[in-house]
Amino acid sequence: MGKLILEMTMSLDGLTAAPKVSVDHPLGEDGERLHGWLGIDGSPVSETDREISAEMFTDTGAFIFGRRTFDVGEGPWGDDGTFGMPCFVVTNRPREQLVKGRTTFTFVTDGIESALEQARAAAGDKDVIVIGGAEVARQYLAAGLIDEVRIHLMPVLLGAGTRLFDSGPRLQLERTRLVESPAVTHLTFRVTGSPQKTR
Amino acid sequence: MGKLILEMTMSLDGLTAAPKVSVDHPLGEDGERLHGWLGIDGSPVSETDREISAEMFTDTGAFIFGRRTFDVGEGPWGDDGTFGMPCFVVTNRPREQLVKGRTTFTFVTDGIESALEQARAAAGDKDVIVIGGAEVARQYLAAGLIDEVRIHLMPVLLGAGTRLFDSGPRLQLERTRLVESPAVTHLTFRVTGSPQKTR
Repeated sequence: MGKLILEMTMSLDGLTAAPKVSVDHPLGEDGERLHGWLGIDGSPVSETDREISAEMFTDTGAFIFGRRTFDVGEGPWGDDGTFGMPCFVVTNRPREQLVKGRTTFTFVTDGIESALEQARAAAGDKDVIVIGGAEVARQYLAAGLIDEVRIHLMPVLLGAGTRLFDSGPRLQLERTRLVESPAVTHLTFRVTGSPQKTR
Repeated sequence: MGKLILEMTMSLDGLTAAPKVSVDHPLGEDGERLHGWLGIDGSPVSETDREISAEMFTDTGAFIFGRRTFDVGEGPWGDDGTFGMPCFVVTNRPREQLVKGRTTFTFVTDGIESALEQARAAAGDKDVIVIGGAEVARQYLAAGLIDEVRIHLMPVLLGAGTRLFDSGPRLQLERTRLVESPAVTHLTFRVTGSPQKTR
């Protein structure tokens, strides 16, 4: 069984989107800067960042995300669905499975553990990556299901928006990888457990 | 004139202290882990971290912090006051200047700009460092006065506590330095201005 990985881009002030996320502004109004390392705002993409973004698919057998992420992503992801593998959408609103090329979107209405079970079945020995939104990410963290956290830390303070880590569990991490590019700092952490009390 | 630097240790979930900060627990209950890179929780301190913490005094001519930071720090800082230079405490409660060896604590009741003015006068050409608490840090950020942000990013999710960046200004940063140690990731950012609108 592969790892369950939480992978998201976050501003230094802990946000994953600017305010007013919509189909027209998937990262919120003027939030495109947050994904500048991926070139979404028209910024040039460094070779390092190209490699890191490609790695997201290398050992991965399935993706999980929330309904809002799907709703605002569906357009930009294009006719082939971008992911090229099974994707599971955590939602309260049932919908028929959607197939776009090799990408399948399966809408799961019975909770995060069910979505994970289906994703693991689809992924086989490969990893499963949760890419958000923040609420779905927090649910997996709170359930103690995340093995690894990958944060692409962008050097920007957005001031307001969607907070990734908020009122979550106490978790001890270990930094297992650090890659820097001109645009961003890529941090990988292994979840090692609950922090030990120091007194 | 030197730089105005904001320098703080922050958890990956953006917190600078665990809940219930007190004289007995300056970093909150079970928050000592957050300053593990400084050995405060009994952890061994790496040579890299020793150098980084020593650098905090090298080019610095004065420190600024809030009253709560002073109140919970006064005991641990000891008879020589630790800092060895002028310190300015932003507070609403007047108090006579306190001298501990070469460390002076001056209590400033007329706001952050007055504290900065006095700190700059004391620092001469050297830098002034704001070390918290979070509220004082946010006031300096919101006023557009911070030139550089130094974050010691600890690999822990505290879950709850004192948030550093919260409802602040939108600011574009540039990472100017990155140092890793086994315990922590040291990040330095230059504040380059307000982020450009991308659309």
